[in-house]
Amino acid sequence: MSRRATSGGEERRAVTIRDVAAHAGVSVATVSRILSGTYPSAPATRGKVMRAVRELDYVANANARGLAGASNRSVAIIVNSVVSPHYAHVAQGVQTQAALEGKLCIVGTTGGDPERELATVQLMRQEHAECVILVGNVVNNDAYRERMAEYARALAAAGSQLVLCGRPTLGPDVPALVIEYDNTGGAYAITSHLLSAGHRRILFLGRHEGWTTPGSRVAGYRNALADFGVPHDPGLEIDGTMERSEGYRMIRRRLAAGPPDFTAVFAGNDLIAAGARQALREHGLRIPDDISMVGFDDLPTAADIDLTTVHVPHEELGRTAVRMALRRGSGEAGMTEHVMLGTHIVVRDSVRVLRRPS
Amino acid sequence: MSRRATSGGEERRAVTIRDVAAHAGVSVATVSRILSGTYPSAPATRGKVMRAVRELDYVANANARGLAGASNRSVAIIVNSVVSPHYAHVAQGVQTQAALEGKLCIVGTTGGDPERELATVQLMRQEHAECVILVGNVVNNDAYRERMAEYARALAAAGSQLVLCGRPTLGPDVPALVIEYDNTGGAYAITSHLLSAGHRRILFLGRHEGWTTPGSRVAGYRNALADFGVPHDPGLEIDGTMERSEGYRMIRRRLAAGPPDFTAVFAGNDLIAAGARQALREHGLRIPDDISMVGFDDLPTAADIDLTTVHVPHEELGRTAVRMALRRGSGEAGMTEHVMLGTHIVVRDSVRVLRRPS
Repeated sequence: MSRRATSGGEERRAVTIRDVAAHAGVSVATVSRILSGTYPSAPATRGKVMRAVRELDYVANANARGLAGASNRSVAIIVNSVVSPHYAHVAQGVQTQAALEGKLCIVGTTGGDPERELATVQLMRQEHAECVILVGNVVNNDAYRERMAEYARALAAAGSQLVLCGRPTLGPDVPALVIEYDNTGGAYAITSHLLSAGHRRILFLGRHEGWTTPGSRVAGYRNALADFGVPHDPGLEIDGTMERSEGYRMIRRRLAAGPPDFTAVFAGNDLIAAGARQALREHGLRIPDDISMVGFDDLPTAADIDLTTVHVPHEELGRTAVRMALRRGSGEAGMTEHVMLGTHIVVRDSVRVLRRPS
Repeated sequence: MSRRATSGGEERRAVTIRDVAAHAGVSVATVSRILSGTYPSAPATRGKVMRAVRELDYVANANARGLAGASNRSVAIIVNSVVSPHYAHVAQGVQTQAALEGKLCIVGTTGGDPERELATVQLMRQEHAECVILVGNVVNNDAYRERMAEYARALAAAGSQLVLCGRPTLGPDVPALVIEYDNTGGAYAITSHLLSAGHRRILFLGRHEGWTTPGSRVAGYRNALADFGVPHDPGLEIDGTMERSEGYRMIRRRLAAGPPDFTAVFAGNDLIAAGARQALREHGLRIPDDISMVGFDDLPTAADIDLTTVHVPHEELGRTAVRMALRRGSGEAGMTEHVMLGTHIVVRDSVRVLRRPS
């Protein structure tokens, strides 16, 4: 029934704010003011406008600022969860740029389930989203690449565009845009920061074999150790995922096995750092007096706990993803298909300078 | 062009995972494993399955777990921004419950712009979302109530359902469900906690005239002062919005005007508390030694800064909103149209017990 109702609505010309203004006998600006509810208005005027809105079924036929009614009018981002601050900030960047471009922004959430991801891509495709942005950490195996190639082709066939954000490229034959940020470079820089302060036993928290994001961060950590001539001890790399509770768990377990055999911690992200810090404090260990710590991401939590960390341009990733997709759609020349944004250290108060070992 | 392509797709029977399995000559479980990419698989098998996926255009006709293809298959939540942790956690609850019910979850973001809100409601309605959940803090004036009443009627006419979350009821003639949580009770309890510890000069940060959420929190603060016989000093209520930067600004400004004339701070939410704490520290004031502080929301940041606060059941709000809407749609009896969830204090280490004034 609702499908038929919508089809009927598509055949009719959409009701615009001008129709409402004409019906109510007021200006377009007055209708806009009254609908937005942000300015005072006379009850009689509001009554006329709201009657016109009802009689024309304006909400059901919304055409605000040309947003609805156009066939390509929204940009979509698909994430595992909006509770992850990195995803939330990328989504915020997508929303900001979408608003500047006069598009709506919709966020699909999958809970990390590939079947829900598939169904969500399909939903966005049916909805004629102008682009579909997929974000974050993956296992970059053949099955993943084939799934993404299918999405890219299905979206391209529907006039849409796949954008991968914070993920590796798929190869030249797949119609996907890619925007990354420099995980390896950031991890190299922050590990060098600890090494320069005299730390040699640096515990890495959050290794996760096969996954792209922790994999790149571990690679930067190992590169820095090698360049400083510090032997790599695999026993200092602790497996775990990217959550706060995991940081707590990894440190609790390590300290249960014996006193700290490290002077510094490189937490795979700021959430891990927050959880690890809590576990250290419960063992009476203070940062930076007893143990130094650095993180990755520069989320608001890093400011709360005075954490030296790596700044990731979360919102700029989202904004650039939208700009790349829409410029490409407009046939604008000179757009690249692969962008890498830089990262840099933010120094706060979580690293102690040690005496150089004699 | 894309619209026509979709209409054609709707007339054909949707391709299912069973079709892919039959075409590839493997089991449904094998197709599912290979598409999910979470298990190892033989290259030859994967090749057969991905060829079947391509030949049947499976992604473009996805029908995973019956999610796509059904006319009512998604639940929608509309928020100002997913960067606000409260909204993000409510959205997480919506996603969790949607997954349990076999529905997709889509999040619309508006940046607080009523025209984008209107267009997003329209988009969700066209997409046949089974319910549309609007969250949070509003100015509860006639224009707002009329706008919501229009949404409620337009959605009901399309077989959908408006749910207001953390907002007041609209009245019995409007087809909207309402789920709230107890802002006033939580604020009363946490103010009483400060008063019981001997605090009499309690600075409230984040009053915002006319808005529902800060309004209810200020009301609880004033009720507690009255019940403890403490005179109400309007000079202790500071205007501001619910962001971290606002907490920082409000304390900076207050301390620039003179030394603290308060012993405790009630931050209107945990983000304000985090910003206020930073400003206090920059003035050399420690929590709780010099100034006590409490917040509201119990977000992860509260644990990072050892903040005593009021727990809000963010995810339960989202889950209950979905349950209410779907049970109602199924015609199940005994469902109420208005639910109020409780709040409670979480005691950490941010309040000092003062000597009673002699």
